[in-house]
Amino acid sequence: MKKIYLEESEIPKAWYNVKADMPKLPPPLIMADTLKEPPIEMLQRLFAKELVEQELSTDRFIDIPEKVRNMYSIYRPSPLIRANFLEEKLGLKSKLYFKYEGVSPSGSHKSNSAIPQAYYNKQIGINRLTTETGAGQWGSALSMACKVFGLECVIYMVKVSFEQKPYRKILMQTNGATVFASPSRNTKNGIALSEKYPNTTGSLAMAISEAVEDALSHENSRYALGSVLSHVVIHQTVLGIEAKKQLEKIGQYPDIICGCVGGGSSFGGLVFPFIPDKLNGKNIDIIAVEPKACPTLTKGKYAYDYGDASNMTPLIPMYTLGNNFKPSPIHSGGLRYHGSGAELSRLVKDGMIEAVALSQKDVFEAAIQFIQTEGIVPAPESSHGIAQAIFEAKKADREGKPKTILCSLTGHGHFDMSSYENYLTGNMVDTCPTDDEIEDSLKYLPEAPELD
Amino acid sequence: MKKIYLEESEIPKAWYNVKADMPKLPPPLIMADTLKEPPIEMLQRLFAKELVEQELSTDRFIDIPEKVRNMYSIYRPSPLIRANFLEEKLGLKSKLYFKYEGVSPSGSHKSNSAIPQAYYNKQIGINRLTTETGAGQWGSALSMACKVFGLECVIYMVKVSFEQKPYRKILMQTNGATVFASPSRNTKNGIALSEKYPNTTGSLAMAISEAVEDALSHENSRYALGSVLSHVVIHQTVLGIEAKKQLEKIGQYPDIICGCVGGGSSFGGLVFPFIPDKLNGKNIDIIAVEPKACPTLTKGKYAYDYGDASNMTPLIPMYTLGNNFKPSPIHSGGLRYHGSGAELSRLVKDGMIEAVALSQKDVFEAAIQFIQTEGIVPAPESSHGIAQAIFEAKKADREGKPKTILCSLTGHGHFDMSSYENYLTGNMVDTCPTDDEIEDSLKYLPEAPELD
Repeated sequence: MKKIYLEESEIPKAWYNVKADMPKLPPPLIMADTLKEPPIEMLQRLFAKELVEQELSTDRFIDIPEKVRNMYSIYRPSPLIRANFLEEKLGLKSKLYFKYEGVSPSGSHKSNSAIPQAYYNKQIGINRLTTETGAGQWGSALSMACKVFGLECVIYMVKVSFEQKPYRKILMQTNGATVFASPSRNTKNGIALSEKYPNTTGSLAMAISEAVEDALSHENSRYALGSVLSHVVIHQTVLGIEAKKQLEKIGQYPDIICGCVGGGSSFGGLVFPFIPDKLNGKNIDIIAVEPKACPTLTKGKYAYDYGDASNMTPLIPMYTLGNNFKPSPIHSGGLRYHGSGAELSRLVKDGMIEAVALSQKDVFEAAIQFIQTEGIVPAPESSHGIAQAIFEAKKADREGKPKTILCSLTGHGHFDMSSYENYLTGNMVDTCPTDDEIEDSLKYLPEAPELD
Repeated sequence: MKKIYLEESEIPKAWYNVKADMPKLPPPLIMADTLKEPPIEMLQRLFAKELVEQELSTDRFIDIPEKVRNMYSIYRPSPLIRANFLEEKLGLKSKLYFKYEGVSPSGSHKSNSAIPQAYYNKQIGINRLTTETGAGQWGSALSMACKVFGLECVIYMVKVSFEQKPYRKILMQTNGATVFASPSRNTKNGIALSEKYPNTTGSLAMAISEAVEDALSHENSRYALGSVLSHVVIHQTVLGIEAKKQLEKIGQYPDIICGCVGGGSSFGGLVFPFIPDKLNGKNIDIIAVEPKACPTLTKGKYAYDYGDASNMTPLIPMYTLGNNFKPSPIHSGGLRYHGSGAELSRLVKDGMIEAVALSQKDVFEAAIQFIQTEGIVPAPESSHGIAQAIFEAKKADREGKPKTILCSLTGHGHFDMSSYENYLTGNMVDTCPTDDEIEDSLKYLPEAPELD
């Protein structure tokens, strides 16, 4: 079967929270000045009450509100796709399954968290959400969710993506959002960052600083984050819950699960629902794939660090390259983040999840193979997973042990065609940080308890 | 239910040919010089033998080859979507169902014919296909189909679209196609047309002239057309066959069917499978929707005319604005064609199908409503159908007789965001031909028998 669908009634009724099952929990968020957990009031000034509760929860399941499931029905359950044409072309015996989120309004998995975030904020009378966006997937998703639930939406878009991906900006505008190139002149943080780094092409960390400041300086406003935090990953677990059921329907179970990692929400969303099985002895290799240009999990340090560039957020226990790390302007804007979510980082640290880093060119080569066989244009971010899935399949075949591989296909690349042009015309440059540059960036980590 | 799916096994096993059921058949294609039907050898120099047979066939059903069904499985059966969020927003009692083809590799219905055309050509050893493309949907579809079946693909893209939609061009290139802006310097026709109309932004008719010349001047090459001709419409009937079955599953039957019309292949594909029911007394209103800028069915003449701008093709019995008609460069590139398919034209002439024309601004207003409720960005072409469906629903509600409306949603608009920007920034201009201009253009129709 080429595509495995579920019925609308099979849209999950609850999200999964991996914290309920982790052998070792990540340490809590702390404030840089007090080294204590952030006061609830402070978190609730940033996020809707319900989202703060989810952030701190260790409950295994969290009910999905009926109105959220209703909006999910626009695109969920999303298809699981057997990439049999790609397998044939490559002569593979291993099986490749992709959980495809490109069918959503934003063209990516980001709608899975945008919808509940807009919903919970609307519930408590908030009328305006601010956010950052890298490649624009998160901004697209939030603008649509805000439009549907009747909230104003203000978006700080990383400057390099704002310029590389003008169509993404227009998509947000069709949903009535206001979009600024970040760093902008619209916030004190934006102005300060522009002065400090006059030639900057922006970063997610900078855009977060602007969006947080904007939310805090407007009444009845809240901030919305598209990745990293626990509540965002929790929302994304619809991926893994559905994928598991879809594979079950055809009598399959994955030997390997892989996918791209930026902040880690799509990845956590896909793999966390399989963690209990792994803890119960199932033999699954779980592989996080990041770009060599921003090698957080493979070359970063496991430490407390700020989530943004202007030291506005609490400290997060995570793998980090330092919040001043400036990733080169690669085409996977969604993966240009200096850190990774706390649960993912802890599970990598504890050896439950493996991490690898790939070059842009290898990633685009895999993407072109995918387009020419499966007909779907993958986002550059998603293509990291595709490249790794192909690599793992070939390796398994070589070893005479074909495997079943599950991979996230987090979104389509219809708004990333300039990146494909760049690759096709031979103009793609792979710029990776040296070990010295990373070491230098890590010097500026905040004073905080060491993590082990 | 939000989305109505069919099983993979329910991909149609045969296409439907409306000629088997038409009360009055369209007259045959004829040659301008002899006024006789074109010799088979001539047609077979242009199209694969099997396609020529389909073109001339009056058989009711034509088997879909297994390899074509296999490739169809990448995206077929396509979903039927209940636009309940749009209905709610507009407070409608009428029901809106959209047959959504944006899930295909090309992002539109065009893959339905590109796949069999590439397949039949490959079968007889052809190794190169040439074609024209307007908005780029057909070119994207054919490039993917050629890549999969191992054919070279050469595309003449209407200049205004080539410039407005650069991402479409890159999509074709990722599938290995060669793309020229038309009129180009690559063919004698292109050079002559450029000299005759130095400021031209191109037209489908010009691009057809170039692609036909290119095919005829290269050995082992054939030409592929994306609309108008009978065999293309036949391939598109998978739309209507599937939609009928999907509505049946939920106990519905359409009172009204509508959709956009350029050459008429997606429209014929959706509505023709309902024609037998209409002939058997079912009360269905069938409405073809075209742009006011290119009002073929509403203001054209039913007459024999060339399919291209350089008088290379046989004469087609159809509604036409004259093959020298220069539609203004509106954003629905796929609807900028001077004629319409022979069967569709005949059925309009005989009052079985009604035709209406809409302005660009009304169309984009409907598109924005659709995006903000249903989360899908429709192609500007498809949005003509959406606008009409909303109009019909409101009218039916006003009359106190809510209806079930089936409409084609032929593709997504991810490559048309510059058109949305144009609309959102208030820069959209609606240029429509005057009756005098149309009359003038019709003066140059070829000498041929009158049609009635």
